[in-house]
Amino acid sequence: MNRYIAEGAGTALLVFLGVGGAVFGLAQLGAVGVALAFGLALLALAYAIGPVSGCHVNPAVTVGMLLARRITPVEAGVYIVAQVAGGIVGMGVIRLVTAAGGATMQVNGANGYGERINAAGAFLLEAILTFMLVLVYLMVTRRNEVYGFDGLAIGLTLALVTLVGITLTGTSVNPARSIGPAVFGGWTALSQVWLFIIAPLVGGALAALVPPLLREPETPTANEPPSEELW
Amino acid sequence: MNRYIAEGAGTALLVFLGVGGAVFGLAQLGAVGVALAFGLALLALAYAIGPVSGCHVNPAVTVGMLLARRITPVEAGVYIVAQVAGGIVGMGVIRLVTAAGGATMQVNGANGYGERINAAGAFLLEAILTFMLVLVYLMVTRRNEVYGFDGLAIGLTLALVTLVGITLTGTSVNPARSIGPAVFGGWTALSQVWLFIIAPLVGGALAALVPPLLREPETPTANEPPSEELW
Amino acid sequence: MNRYIAEGAGTALLVFLGVGGAVFGLAQLGAVGVALAFGLALLALAYAIGPVSGCHVNPAVTVGMLLARRITPVEAGVYIVAQVAGGIVGMGVIRLVTAAGGATMQVNGANGYGERINAAGAFLLEAILTFMLVLVYLMVTRRNEVYGFDGLAIGLTLALVTLVGITLTGTSVNPARSIGPAVFGGWTALSQVWLFIIAPLVGGALAALVPPLLREPETPTANEPPSEELW
Amino acid sequence: MNRYIAEGAGTALLVFLGVGGAVFGLAQLGAVGVALAFGLALLALAYAIGPVSGCHVNPAVTVGMLLARRITPVEAGVYIVAQVAGGIVGMGVIRLVTAAGGATMQVNGANGYGERINAAGAFLLEAILTFMLVLVYLMVTRRNEVYGFDGLAIGLTLALVTLVGITLTGTSVNPARSIGPAVFGGWTALSQVWLFIIAPLVGGALAALVPPLLREPETPTANEPPSEELW
Repeated sequence: MNRYIAEGAGTALLVFLGVGGAVFGLAQLGAVGVALAFGLALLALAYAIGPVSGCHVNPAVTVGMLLARRITPVEAGVYIVAQVAGGIVGMGVIRLVTAAGGATMQVNGANGYGERINAAGAFLLEAILTFMLVLVYLMVTRRNEVYGFDGLAIGLTLALVTLVGITLTGTSVNPARSIGPAVFGGWTALSQVWLFIIAPLVGGALAALVPPLLREPETPTANEPPSEELW
Repeated sequence: MNRYIAEGAGTALLVFLGVGGAVFGLAQLGAVGVALAFGLALLALAYAIGPVSGCHVNPAVTVGMLLARRITPVEAGVYIVAQVAGGIVGMGVIRLVTAAGGATMQVNGANGYGERINAAGAFLLEAILTFMLVLVYLMVTRRNEVYGFDGLAIGLTLALVTLVGITLTGTSVNPARSIGPAVFGGWTALSQVWLFIIAPLVGGALAALVPPLLREPETPTANEPPSEELW
Repeated sequence: MNRYIAEGAGTALLVFLGVGGAVFGLAQLGAVGVALAFGLALLALAYAIGPVSGCHVNPAVTVGMLLARRITPVEAGVYIVAQVAGGIVGMGVIRLVTAAGGATMQVNGANGYGERINAAGAFLLEAILTFMLVLVYLMVTRRNEVYGFDGLAIGLTLALVTLVGITLTGTSVNPARSIGPAVFGGWTALSQVWLFIIAPLVGGALAALVPPLLREPETPTANEPPSEELW
Repeated sequence: MNRYIAEGAGTALLVFLGVGGAVFGLAQLGAVGVALAFGLALLALAYAIGPVSGCHVNPAVTVGMLLARRITPVEAGVYIVAQVAGGIVGMGVIRLVTAAGGATMQVNGANGYGERINAAGAFLLEAILTFMLVLVYLMVTRRNEVYGFDGLAIGLTLALVTLVGITLTGTSVNPARSIGPAVFGGWTALSQVWLFIIAPLVGGALAALVPPLLREPETPTANEPPSEELW
């Protein structure tokens, strides 16, 4: 039970902090500030809840972990429900701060395509960026826990892929991050959210194919020195 | 005794460096630069004094630790007195650099509401951001010490929450960070400082409720691999 | 075989993310954002594939490792072929996102000289920056693997040298990073790419001379405390 | 002998990269970019040469270590000579890149006072910022070596203090960083360099007084968990 609470609350915090960074302050923070908000939120959560739930907070990561056979289909289903619900709650609280709290919404926080990139380009971009994120996740962890350097690598990878895609689609790489703002974001956001669900899931699923190619069973991860000979 | 000196001096340095970043250079540093100044100051202090006092340097963290029964009420009281005194000293030295030193004060460094966000919104925002900070602190540490990856996670979480709130309230999440500038900041700052005392304490207290929900006694933290089987 | 796949795919991802950051969003990301994109891409890859291939993803690193006798000439040759091919693929995918995907190319991503710095200056600059990168790589690792703090140091060093040179040459320090954009970048880029092949290789080769001067065989690296006496 | 080469070459690289960041690109990098260049240069050097020489690359650190009785007066003297010589070489190479290389010098890289802050303010500011840097150095290390989290804390502390002071004095906190640009910087820079020698040394010396107050002999540093009971 603990792990499902962690995934739901973690995704709510990720969305509140990452999307909130853009909604409250895109003009002052710029692309670098918003990318850091997303990345540092995931880094912080990875250290806080990584030992509890693995800190996926992202259905694309969960799908990658499922295909890598590191969680069961039932666990994956509950994780994804908790993540999507958490993302909607996180965005709801942003709306509370802007509506009742009187803060200006600089942007609505939704991912989109059609202005700076077309749908095909957005799909390709989101799939590649999510591939990178989930590949790093799968390679640096071994089971369904995050510890040591894993959180650093995972969090900073989200900062990185957010930076690269932010000017084109706003960077989703996480269906739960996109569904929240779409629910509150009006017709355009809702009509485009399918892409930010499917493309990240495709990218995450493809990433699950790679570790068996690269890593033999006995290969260490970056937390573990390969042998004791020299150390 | 050592630990109280560490908390007082640490808070003075945190305020001098974080608030000083804004006072001396907000226009050149921008939101990202000021958020990094706060976050890296806490990160540096966490490695320097974390093994001595736990590096709370923040009454909201101390209240969270008290409710989590990881420090005694007497210790908590002395910590908070040292932190508030340190914050005032830190701001006093900033004033010395600007008054006697001839440096321009770009802003007065005080937290506030009413312009970019109303009081209710500011209260909600500060409570949530402090909840995140104290939650990370409580989850990554186990006793009243900070070591290994803890300092990285805690410091970067302060950078993160500072980024998210800086355009609305200037981000307090720390009563000691707000009291110093309010003492030197004139009537408006003083009349609003109550919010930046109470909201962070509420957020920190709420955070103390979470770890028992997420973490069973034997759950490792991110510094500790969960078992030796695979490693 | 695993390691050659890792080098090829890793270099493709490095180029897609680093050069892509500039191509898609230089105006919004600025020099700091693009430097972070390169550095965090290498950091993430170092944790993901560092235990597999050492995560060179750069012929200058491979040449340094060859001269330091930590890989064989045959391995080095295959590494470099994989890296150059990967860099071309990475740039090809950027072109797909901009051409078919409709994203604007803000810059063509190629390194160059002649505008902000002459050829002699560019050669000197690229050689020194690559010297720094490869020196850090050789000093923090011991064999052909990257683990623990190594990835942090290596990735942030690439962010650093990218920051320092970006306004003058766009910072290569990596022939594979330069060849990709040159292949797609028209005559000027192609005619200047020799410098961004030779200068980094010279810098990387010179770096291989230093560790024997600084480090005696028994000297620990930063991952290993020097002795157990005090610990 | 190794350690003196490390200090000289390390300081040359620190000055080339940090001061070079400002000289080549202040307008594009901004305060955050230049502060990151200094901080990441020290971080990278700490991992590369920290196990060899302790990576002071700064006479103020060396004076603090001398007063803390962690190096001998003779060692300290040779360290400082190597650092100052390295700083001059580093700045000389910057001048080579700009003069022979044709790169524009955006600023001359020298520290200064009188425009944005008076001499008294600059002295106080530089002493406090250096106090912070050397305090962190002394608290996170135990002997004359840097390993593990130490390099992260030390490097990011330099980024932090550079951010805070950069708009006022350009931030020295390191006599060797100031002497190099002063030698090449004309009369104003030379006539003011005394302050950027003395104030950092005062700050570093004061920092040496603190660890005995905070840390009892058996207190662990952040790299060492305090006991094995819970772990």
